[in-house]
Amino acid sequence: MAKKIGVILSGCGVKDGAEIHEAVCAMLALDRAGAEIVCLAPNKDQADVVNHVTGAPQGEKRNVLVEAARIARGQIRDVATVKASDLDRAIVPGGFGAAKNLCTFASDGPDCKVDPGVQKLLRDLHAAKKPIGALCIAPALVAAIFGKDVKPELTIGTDEGTAKALEKMGAKHVKTPVTDIVVDRKNKIATTACYMLATRISEVAAGAEKVVKAVLEMA
Amino acid sequence: MAKKIGVILSGCGVKDGAEIHEAVCAMLALDRAGAEIVCLAPNKDQADVVNHVTGAPQGEKRNVLVEAARIARGQIRDVATVKASDLDRAIVPGGFGAAKNLCTFASDGPDCKVDPGVQKLLRDLHAAKKPIGALCIAPALVAAIFGKDVKPELTIGTDEGTAKALEKMGAKHVKTPVTDIVVDRKNKIATTACYMLATRISEVAAGAEKVVKAVLEMA
Repeated sequence: MAKKIGVILSGCGVKDGAEIHEAVCAMLALDRAGAEIVCLAPNKDQADVVNHVTGAPQGEKRNVLVEAARIARGQIRDVATVKASDLDRAIVPGGFGAAKNLCTFASDGPDCKVDPGVQKLLRDLHAAKKPIGALCIAPALVAAIFGKDVKPELTIGTDEGTAKALEKMGAKHVKTPVTDIVVDRKNKIATTACYMLATRISEVAAGAEKVVKAVLEMA
Repeated sequence: MAKKIGVILSGCGVKDGAEIHEAVCAMLALDRAGAEIVCLAPNKDQADVVNHVTGAPQGEKRNVLVEAARIARGQIRDVATVKASDLDRAIVPGGFGAAKNLCTFASDGPDCKVDPGVQKLLRDLHAAKKPIGALCIAPALVAAIFGKDVKPELTIGTDEGTAKALEKMGAKHVKTPVTDIVVDRKNKIATTACYMLATRISEVAAGAEKVVKAVLEMA
């Protein structure tokens, strides 16, 4: 039986949603490893919609699930309807969507709120001892959910401000170069910096592949 | 000097834009080969905007270049402003955008019209003997531009209706299994079926990698 891996998407595009290269590189690594990909996203409006040429807000509404379906090619489920028992593991790609739509870290820092469906699913997976991977800024989401309880060891690369915010939420931050990963075996959480540090897609793929491998290998 | 490869995007999402997995897998293969990626798209409204969960038109306007910038992470140029002398080669990922926004093959079949900026760039590249790669349905664009003049040998996989339409435009269609490619060495054009046949992203990556390799290797 193929392992079922939830890929939690936060829209479609680095500036207001899931980082596309990170999501696709993770999905490619999962598929090549023979895992079954289950794409998930919250069914709600995005925090904002950003023009990816200019970087300016577009002043329109888009739905996180509907936009994430672009990456998922239509095969996607509302994260609030999925149970931990439906999955064997989960991976959260980065992009500002992880810090705007899955939680509010981009605007609220360590005081951020987490989307209830995402929080319940990740808490339940962790309680069932199922591994979780997080890329780029998504470790902030992991810190927001688990920081105080289990003090997970995480990386977002080398950015000091972000690392301090993660530590304020209770996580232990480990500095890493771009394609290295941190594996917290006790908590079954694997993280890597991806575009927090990467300057090219091959670096993203290298880190994502290592996180996928670690997440699939942890028992 | 790294080779400069134009990646001609047609939006962001399989149903109304560039197929995201095909675009990202091609970009990853290009980056791993040491090529310099130059993302391009037409600066105009998309033919339509499709909800990727339901498949229904959303009745809104989006700009091809602005949406394609999501895949390009903001680093993208208007295809109409780029000269063949700026590039060494070009790759066109598929998705309905290639047949709705780069040309009108999706609605007009063999009588389709081609976006003028895309047509000029690809014609000029071909005249300069610079190789072109096309994935999925994008070979229809190649047939629309070059079919009558140079009778290129192409594949879109095995779909008979599409293959007949390509032949009506003057191309020679070669049936291929999902991860095989067709290389027309005389015309320096490499094509593969990707999601015309693929059922998983690893198949897409395998075909895209072979097309990228062929496009980079052709002198």
